[in-house]
Amino acid sequence: MLSVMLKIIRRHSEADPQCTLEIMYVTVMDNIFLLVLVTLLSVVQNVFFALKVEKECTGQHSKHHSAVFERLSCANRNCMDTYPTFLAVLWCAGICLSQAPAAFSGIIYLVVRQKYFVGYMGQTCQSTPGFLFGKRILFFLSLMCVVGIINHLLLTYGDSDYKEYIQTITKAASTLLLLP
Amino acid sequence: MLSVMLKIIRRHSEADPQCTLEIMYVTVMDNIFLLVLVTLLSVVQNVFFALKVEKECTGQHSKHHSAVFERLSCANRNCMDTYPTFLAVLWCAGICLSQAPAAFSGIIYLVVRQKYFVGYMGQTCQSTPGFLFGKRILFFLSLMCVVGIINHLLLTYGDSDYKEYIQTITKAASTLLLLP
Amino acid sequence: MLSVMLKIIRRHSEADPQCTLEIMYVTVMDNIFLLVLVTLLSVVQNVFFALKVEKECTGQHSKHHSAVFERLSCANRNCMDTYPTFLAVLWCAGICLSQAPAAFSGIIYLVVRQKYFVGYMGQTCQSTPGFLFGKRILFFLSLMCVVGIINHLLLTYGDSDYKEYIQTITKAASTLLLLP
Repeated sequence: MLSVMLKIIRRHSEADPQCTLEIMYVTVMDNIFLLVLVTLLSVVQNVFFALKVEKECTGQHSKHHSAVFERLSCANRNCMDTYPTFLAVLWCAGICLSQAPAAFSGIIYLVVRQKYFVGYMGQTCQSTPGFLFGKRILFFLSLMCVVGIINHLLLTYGDSDYKEYIQTITKAASTLLLLP
Repeated sequence: MLSVMLKIIRRHSEADPQCTLEIMYVTVMDNIFLLVLVTLLSVVQNVFFALKVEKECTGQHSKHHSAVFERLSCANRNCMDTYPTFLAVLWCAGICLSQAPAAFSGIIYLVVRQKYFVGYMGQTCQSTPGFLFGKRILFFLSLMCVVGIINHLLLTYGDSDYKEYIQTITKAASTLLLLP
Repeated sequence: MLSVMLKIIRRHSEADPQCTLEIMYVTVMDNIFLLVLVTLLSVVQNVFFALKVEKECTGQHSKHHSAVFERLSCANRNCMDTYPTFLAVLWCAGICLSQAPAAFSGIIYLVVRQKYFVGYMGQTCQSTPGFLFGKRILFFLSLMCVVGIINHLLLTYGDSDYKEYIQTITKAASTLLLLP
C-alpha cells in the first residue's frame, strides 16, 4: 500500500492536486476490492439460481415438474429475500472494521447458500422453509459493525484506538465460522 | 472531528503517508457511522420479521393458523420488497447531503414499518395491501439527494456553496416528519 | 474538478484541515453523482410500478381484473427480485472503473425494465417469465468491475496503470449496448 503511494508521489510533484486524487482513489480501492469480488461472486450465483428456475419453468408441464418448479421457485425466493440484508451487513462490516474477515465470511455465506439451494432442489422437501440460513454469519458480520462503531466513538470521544488489536482478533475469529 | 485530526497529526509527523490514511479513514467513518447504525437496526428488524414468519410456519397447521401465516407472509413480503429501495435512498441522501437528518428519517421509517407489520399481524385484515408505506419519508430522502446533487453542480459550475445553510434547513425539516 | 479544488484552496490556507475535508468531499461527490442520479431514477420507477400494482389491486374484483392483477404482480416481483443485484453491480462498476459508462448502462437497464413491465401488462401473456431481462447489461457491468479490479492489482503489484486507456475503451464500448 505505502509503496504504491510512494510510486505515485514520485511520478508527480507532491503539491500537485492530481497526486492527492490518485492517492485517494488507490486507498479507497485498496479497502474495498475484496468486497467487490465477493459481491460479484454473489451476483454470479444469483444469475445461476435465476437460470435454474427459468429452465425448470419452461420445461414440460407434467405434475411432477410442477412440484419441482414450486420448490425451486420457493428456494430462490428465500435466497432473494435475504440478499439485500446480506449485502448491507457485508459492506458495513467491511468498511467499519476490516475487509478481509468480512469478505471471508461472505464467501462462507455463499457456500452455505449454494448448499441450501441444492438441498432444496433435491427430492426431499424440507419441512422448515428456513428463511434464515447462515444466521451465524449474519450475526458475526453485525458484531463486526458494532465493534467498528464503538471503536470509532472511543477514538473520537476518548483517546484510545484499539483498531489494530481488534482487526487481528477478528481475523482469527472469522476462521471459527468454518466449524460446522 | 478536527480535534481527532489534530490528535492523529500530533502522533505522526505530518508528511507521513500513514497519517493521511488515518485521517481519511476517520473522516469517512465520521460521515457514515449513523447510517451504519440505522442499517444495523433495520437488519435486526428484518431478522425479527423472518423469525416471526418462520415460527408461525412451523406451528400447527389448522385452518385458522394457515390464514394467519398467509397474512404474516404477505406483510413480510411487502416489507422486503421495499427494503432495497429504502436502503439505496437512505445512503444516497446521507452521503450527498448530511447524515443526521437521513438517519433520523431512517429511524422513523423503521418505526412505521414495525407498526405496519404488527397491524397486519392483528385480527383485522387490511383491505389495502399497502406496498408503499412511509411514502412521505421516502419522498423526503429523495428530495435530500436531489438537493445535494444540485448543490454539488452549483459548486462545480458556479461559485456558490450553500451546503451549510441547506444542512441546517434539512435538520429542521426532518422533525416535521414526526407529524402524523 | 481541479478548478474547484483550486477555488477551495484559495479560500482556506492550505494547511487548514478543514480544507482537506472539503476537497475530499468534493472529490467523492464528483465520482458518484451520476450513480446517485441513476439510483434516484430507479427508485422513482419502483414507486411507479408499486402504484400500478396497488391501483389494480384496489380496483373491481371481476374475473378479468384478477388475471390482470396476477400478471402485474408477477412482473413487479420479477423486477424487484433483480433490483438489489442491479444496484450492487451498478455501484461496484461505477466505483471500480468509471462512473459515466456505468450510469449510461444503468439508464439503458431502466428503459429495458420499463419496456418489460409494460409488455407484461399488455394483453399477451408472455410464456417466458424472464427472471433475467437485461442480461447483457448486467454482464457488461460485471465485466467493468472485473477489469477495474485487475487494473488495481496490476497497479499494486506491477508497475503499470492502464486506467485511462481502459476508461476510454469502456466509454466507447458502452454505446454498443444501444444495439438491439
